[in-house]
Amino acid sequence: MSEPSEVIEAPHVSSADLDVGHVDALRKAIQNSDGEAIRNLLADEHPAELADRFEQLPSDDRNALVVLAPDVISPLLLAELEDEVVEDILPLLELEQISKAMKELDSDDAIQIFEELPKERHAAVLADLSEQDRKEIEDGFAFDEETAGRLMQREFVAAPEFWTVHQTIQHMRTQNEMGDDNLPDKFFDVYVIDAHFHPLGYLPLSTLMRSGPDLVLKDIMDNNLTVIKPELDQEDVAYLFEKFDLISAPVVDVDGRLSGMITVDDIVEIIQDEHTEDMLALAGVSEAGLVDTVGSTVMARAPWLFVNLLTAIAASFVISLFQEEIEKLVALAVLMPIVASMGGNTGTQALTVAIRALATRDLTPANTKRAIRREALAAIVNGLIFATILGIITLAWFDNFKLSFVIAAALVFNLFCAGLAGILVPLGLKKVGADPAVASTVFVTTVTDVVGFLVFLGLAGAFLL
Amino acid sequence: MSEPSEVIEAPHVSSADLDVGHVDALRKAIQNSDGEAIRNLLADEHPAELADRFEQLPSDDRNALVVLAPDVISPLLLAELEDEVVEDILPLLELEQISKAMKELDSDDAIQIFEELPKERHAAVLADLSEQDRKEIEDGFAFDEETAGRLMQREFVAAPEFWTVHQTIQHMRTQNEMGDDNLPDKFFDVYVIDAHFHPLGYLPLSTLMRSGPDLVLKDIMDNNLTVIKPELDQEDVAYLFEKFDLISAPVVDVDGRLSGMITVDDIVEIIQDEHTEDMLALAGVSEAGLVDTVGSTVMARAPWLFVNLLTAIAASFVISLFQEEIEKLVALAVLMPIVASMGGNTGTQALTVAIRALATRDLTPANTKRAIRREALAAIVNGLIFATILGIITLAWFDNFKLSFVIAAALVFNLFCAGLAGILVPLGLKKVGADPAVASTVFVTTVTDVVGFLVFLGLAGAFLL
Repeated sequence: MSEPSEVIEAPHVSSADLDVGHVDALRKAIQNSDGEAIRNLLADEHPAELADRFEQLPSDDRNALVVLAPDVISPLLLAELEDEVVEDILPLLELEQISKAMKELDSDDAIQIFEELPKERHAAVLADLSEQDRKEIEDGFAFDEETAGRLMQREFVAAPEFWTVHQTIQHMRTQNEMGDDNLPDKFFDVYVIDAHFHPLGYLPLSTLMRSGPDLVLKDIMDNNLTVIKPELDQEDVAYLFEKFDLISAPVVDVDGRLSGMITVDDIVEIIQDEHTEDMLALAGVSEAGLVDTVGSTVMARAPWLFVNLLTAIAASFVISLFQEEIEKLVALAVLMPIVASMGGNTGTQALTVAIRALATRDLTPANTKRAIRREALAAIVNGLIFATILGIITLAWFDNFKLSFVIAAALVFNLFCAGLAGILVPLGLKKVGADPAVASTVFVTTVTDVVGFLVFLGLAGAFLL
Repeated sequence: MSEPSEVIEAPHVSSADLDVGHVDALRKAIQNSDGEAIRNLLADEHPAELADRFEQLPSDDRNALVVLAPDVISPLLLAELEDEVVEDILPLLELEQISKAMKELDSDDAIQIFEELPKERHAAVLADLSEQDRKEIEDGFAFDEETAGRLMQREFVAAPEFWTVHQTIQHMRTQNEMGDDNLPDKFFDVYVIDAHFHPLGYLPLSTLMRSGPDLVLKDIMDNNLTVIKPELDQEDVAYLFEKFDLISAPVVDVDGRLSGMITVDDIVEIIQDEHTEDMLALAGVSEAGLVDTVGSTVMARAPWLFVNLLTAIAASFVISLFQEEIEKLVALAVLMPIVASMGGNTGTQALTVAIRALATRDLTPANTKRAIRREALAAIVNGLIFATILGIITLAWFDNFKLSFVIAAALVFNLFCAGLAGILVPLGLKKVGADPAVASTVFVTTVTDVVGFLVFLGLAGAFLL
């Protein structure tokens, strides 16, 4: 009899609550060097669950666990773990365990593990694989990282266009009985090919399943096939999957012959990774991933903090040009950060919207002009609104009509520059082939700081003193 | 003969290039009120492609197009369009066209369209549907927005545990021949149920496909079924799909009976939407989506700009407490923005990492303490590094040893506060049940501005003057 299935109510709460006790127990077992207790704590867990718990451990404990109970690191667990974690623990595993994992897993997962292996162990692991497995790994490695070629698995199901539904199903059953390695663990579409192995169309398994056994594939297949070239960047692959609601897609070689398959579960991971990359880049954190130690945290943040220091000093230099004015009217020093801060905020808003619209491809050459005009106008409108408010507050605070006029004018101008910079900087970076998320923030806030101080203090010098 | 499949090289470049000319031609046809030209330009396009082009148009042109050539808005196109766009164009469509779309689409897509329909048209559209379709819509609407119940489709494939593989396939073929509405357009798993319609396990179609015809489902099914309750938030649903690499998952009712199915293509959309939400929330843009006009852009940004104005004024108030000190030593005014800016940057870095780690559930109660300690220590280390650099620069610039010591001390302290605030603010917001991405930025930068000015000017007042 089958065990009752688990009903999950609010997994983020329940699993988080569980984690604390469970992870604590695990850490205790590790500190006691109790391999048996570790195995008991991790027995019968789903590999995905196991991976989560394992990643919750501090890296020292993780490594100790691997040494104490290496058998816990199953092939499926290795496939579930984050790349950074795999990189950490592979040096602790025996050669046999690594090559066993690579033999058992589909080729895309095997390549991901191989990627994290130190170069000096490559030859030894490859020597341990079968001729076919070795070739698959080597072929995959011929493609650049983060391309479709790296991502794809070599296992897929293809059928000649003249086969019937019955023949196709029968073929898969035979492959399965013979333990054929080329049958993927999971697949969702059958690719229909011609005599030269060129894909002509595809059949979702659900269509194959409901079609009469005597129907011929070419008559029921979907011609609207999205074929992917192996050199395509993974971000573009993800875009195609999203756009066309794909579950799997075939990859072809230079001659257009079917050579691999990409499935949607890998795409979900890529989307998450790309998103983490974008967010961290916008915040000036240079290294993504599961950063664990103080040292790596400092290393990931210091570079952009240094750039920020330089731009802040540039802004200070602008202020230093107006020391005389500030000495005469110290209210300028009190008020000037408001102009810069409002500009920075407006710039960040425009920038974030632009970065996101570029990532989702809602911002294209077809509507760029409109988007720039919209940002500029919206910044002016917001500038007028907040200039009015700030002008009134300044008047009430310092009882100086000219001062309140100067700050209002400076605010409108700075917000206008901020809105424009917010959209033009990422567009410009993209145009020169750079990642628009990286460095955009620093450029934009430099503009808003420098312009803010310069215009406010400059106008004050000209009209107030 | 089947037409050759399209090989896509770099879709973001090629399609973007195409867009400009194509969208321009489309806009021209719209301005000429030439419905025929519009139809020709949009003929034979994939609905996803069509949706992209349509969304590239300014909203005025979009509406004009719908009025000129309403037949272009096919059911499949409606299902592909962004919610905001559907909301815009539904008022322009005849009742018959809307109800036709809702009849043809799977129930999850039909509900999404119904959601965007003005309330006063609900009754009329429902009256036009079949008894079953109407019930499905009403049932879906009984669940809250953004829950599994809203998201799921009522069409799925279930089979009793005692059926054989052959029986199951035969059943689907019969359903298909009879045009049974309950057979989904696409599906990936067969759910195995007991006599009470409780799900016991599932069979990926690829397993069903390769298994011998006489095998019984309960012997080959996967017991490791993730069952979803209809009230589960869509973000949690997406998390389960990611974690367990799901392609589809069954939804059950209060009695644990199978009542619907969620598929991965909807999940990919949700992940993207949640990303957009997080990024915009961090930047203080209150409304996500395809904002098109200057008015809506202003509305989406002004609220958080107003909050920012208040916090900037609070920081200015802090400065105003030290007007005397600034008058005596104007270098303070020159240097103070550096302390605030470095703090703001450090806070944003810590904040973004924390928000992202919360979203991906890498930051959990099991490792929160470690993460806080890490942020605090990393901030101190970076504080010491940049205090040294800034101290030397200040000494060289103003030739004032005490001043350079004061700014160095203020920087270390402010970066420490920034790092702590960066992780504690989102954790605190989450604890009280708020979205950690919303408002975090304002809280953190308020801390770094106020602390930065207060400590730097305060120390200067105490030790320099």
